[in-house]
Amino acid sequence: MIEANNPQWETWLPVPEKSDFPIQNIPFGIGVFGPGIHHACTRIGDTVIDLYALAENGLVLHSGVENPEVLKQEVLNDLMKSGKSGMRQLRDHLSRLFRKDNPLLRDNPELREKCLFPYKAVSLELPVKVENYTDFYSSIEHATNVGTMFRGKENALMPNWRYLPVGYHGRSSSIIVSGEAVRRPWGQQRPDPEAPPVFGPSRLVDFELEMAFVTCGENQQGTPIPVREAEDYIIGFVLFNDWSARDIQGWEYVPLGPFLSKNWASSVSPWIVTLDALEPFRVEGPYQEPEVFDYLKSEGKRNFDIKLEVIIQPENGEENVVSRSNFKYMYWNICQQLAHHTVNGCNIQIGDMYASGTISGPSPDSYGSMLELTWRGANPIKLNDGSERKFINDFDTVIMRGYAEKGNLRIGFGEVSSKLLPAIKEWK
Amino acid sequence: MIEANNPQWETWLPVPEKSDFPIQNIPFGIGVFGPGIHHACTRIGDTVIDLYALAENGLVLHSGVENPEVLKQEVLNDLMKSGKSGMRQLRDHLSRLFRKDNPLLRDNPELREKCLFPYKAVSLELPVKVENYTDFYSSIEHATNVGTMFRGKENALMPNWRYLPVGYHGRSSSIIVSGEAVRRPWGQQRPDPEAPPVFGPSRLVDFELEMAFVTCGENQQGTPIPVREAEDYIIGFVLFNDWSARDIQGWEYVPLGPFLSKNWASSVSPWIVTLDALEPFRVEGPYQEPEVFDYLKSEGKRNFDIKLEVIIQPENGEENVVSRSNFKYMYWNICQQLAHHTVNGCNIQIGDMYASGTISGPSPDSYGSMLELTWRGANPIKLNDGSERKFINDFDTVIMRGYAEKGNLRIGFGEVSSKLLPAIKEWK
Repeated sequence: MIEANNPQWETWLPVPEKSDFPIQNIPFGIGVFGPGIHHACTRIGDTVIDLYALAENGLVLHSGVENPEVLKQEVLNDLMKSGKSGMRQLRDHLSRLFRKDNPLLRDNPELREKCLFPYKAVSLELPVKVENYTDFYSSIEHATNVGTMFRGKENALMPNWRYLPVGYHGRSSSIIVSGEAVRRPWGQQRPDPEAPPVFGPSRLVDFELEMAFVTCGENQQGTPIPVREAEDYIIGFVLFNDWSARDIQGWEYVPLGPFLSKNWASSVSPWIVTLDALEPFRVEGPYQEPEVFDYLKSEGKRNFDIKLEVIIQPENGEENVVSRSNFKYMYWNICQQLAHHTVNGCNIQIGDMYASGTISGPSPDSYGSMLELTWRGANPIKLNDGSERKFINDFDTVIMRGYAEKGNLRIGFGEVSSKLLPAIKEWK
Repeated sequence: MIEANNPQWETWLPVPEKSDFPIQNIPFGIGVFGPGIHHACTRIGDTVIDLYALAENGLVLHSGVENPEVLKQEVLNDLMKSGKSGMRQLRDHLSRLFRKDNPLLRDNPELREKCLFPYKAVSLELPVKVENYTDFYSSIEHATNVGTMFRGKENALMPNWRYLPVGYHGRSSSIIVSGEAVRRPWGQQRPDPEAPPVFGPSRLVDFELEMAFVTCGENQQGTPIPVREAEDYIIGFVLFNDWSARDIQGWEYVPLGPFLSKNWASSVSPWIVTLDALEPFRVEGPYQEPEVFDYLKSEGKRNFDIKLEVIIQPENGEENVVSRSNFKYMYWNICQQLAHHTVNGCNIQIGDMYASGTISGPSPDSYGSMLELTWRGANPIKLNDGSERKFINDFDTVIMRGYAEKGNLRIGFGEVSSKLLPAIKEWK
């Protein structure tokens, strides 16, 4: 067992019931600890821990962090150069520091004041500079739903779908952290397929419920990563809202794929929850038929049982849960995705994000997008306040939450939350 | 007229006839001036000029470069933070320093030795860290050729093609500089459309003749760049070989676009030739019908008359010119491309690359890919040594060259050259 995962550990820090952040989690993020002051941090219960402050006070010795300056940057990329094993060593170290029986920081109020902060006092930034971003399409339920809508049930899945994890490159510059608002995009659409296209604000803004893994290693260009080594390159996950403008997408995407319909914004949760912390929640993935090529054959449990939910909150209104899904449904697992991505020699970099594609489950209330939940708007969703939604309205906030649970252990992600602002009126 | 462009200027440095690099060019690149020593540089004739050495010796005062450290980095991204006007000021400054009548460096052999190097003595690196990479599909001849091959003449162009510059996101991590070899990729293909796919080295490796523009400015996420301001964000161009594995592409690309068929490598020329240097070569683009939306209406001459050629050189063999094309054929110009890319609020970054898509001309000898030149292999090309090519063979070197010419003035790019190595045998 990974040392930091022992379910017996308790911490001297207060941890509220049902917290996403017990001492068995220890995620990594970037916090703002003063104007322009960005440090690596973690969270236990409702306390954010400034890792650079720990280092300044001699509390990260033997943690695997050789140069504390990597804890004092705007992103975690340099810290992650220590790779999977370095990050594991740091997580183990932090786990020891906060265990109930360790007096080092517990009994030193002066040090505690320098290093520990209430979570509400620390704003969190995008944890990595996203070097490259790829979006997969790995939920068979989602691909089947969308295929059925646009091509009919018989031709729902493309011939390649069960042979390879379909994916495409996305835009890394516009990935933003939870809490930042997004703006309804303008673009070309063709609402009437017999008439010319029109230009205006998108009318069909949607979310896509996804998770993304973040890489902490690099392969040499020309050298594939074998499927059984893939996890060595992956530090952990974030929640990922792949904002999508369906009307722009429908008009632009042939033949080279989605572009402006997606690249105006994607929102992610601020904490990278490690694969190590999720170890107890591994499950088998779906049976794959036909048998996959050797380079895609992964062994062991490579899916994760992570409960996911999507909430729409109108301006000044209540939260409405519109979908409950689970990451375990994914047909293609992360090892297969990374092995496929590099089988041609493509090189990955530290700080890349690889999103799963929309995570839909088998039942209609587990679909991961409004497109599917309302079946292209045919069945609007009724909210608590009596209003209806086919897609997302201006000033709606979309919130995604995720956690894994087993017995008394709960490892969570917190949330990714983002408000949709109205389109700009016009421009210069 | 831009000061540095005056065709009357002559330099005290030797410039061979037909050189791509007269004093009117002054491109920007990154040279290696010792083990691990990377500096910004330019080239006049056959001489490479170390810009950091100039700065160390007090020769970039009033050049717009405020902090000489930006000249001493592995990439030009930080230098380009000075924006279009800063880069223009630097180019003007360099132009003055090397004019025939300026004795400052000309008459100082000691300084010359510190700052000037024969071009063969300096290896050149990728000039920028490519933050984001987008590939357009903006040649109507190319889109028509490919469409005709795969969908027939009647349906060659998709309905959206004349309304918007179709584009998609590519992989920035695998963009490499001229001189670096690439390796034939493995991947899934389906040679027999009635049978299951197979897995093996690509048999149909192709080049795509493209040019890419590089950005030197940023817009705020959510704020489009108007078409008339687009050039303020563009520093210049490089030649771009978008290596493509046609068999992998044919199987994978539906419905989300090309992915592993492209992301194993793209090769670029090392010098960024500025838009300013290309000013004399502006031409009108093709007539656009139907009329484009207002946000895409560009005024003035936004195409460039740049002669392009593609060469295949077998191992130890002669050069064979297989295509002669021209950048002026592009249906969509760079201002339209950037305005479209940001109309939804997508944010661009300093150091992005935006490639044109394959640049095919109207005649069969001007097509920009083997796919089109051999019409899917139906009409192989005969090389000087008697061998034939349907696609690219192992150990072939593909070379692309480009230059603009008018009267006695020639502004060129040098070349992008890259050898195709055989596929790896197998992996761990």
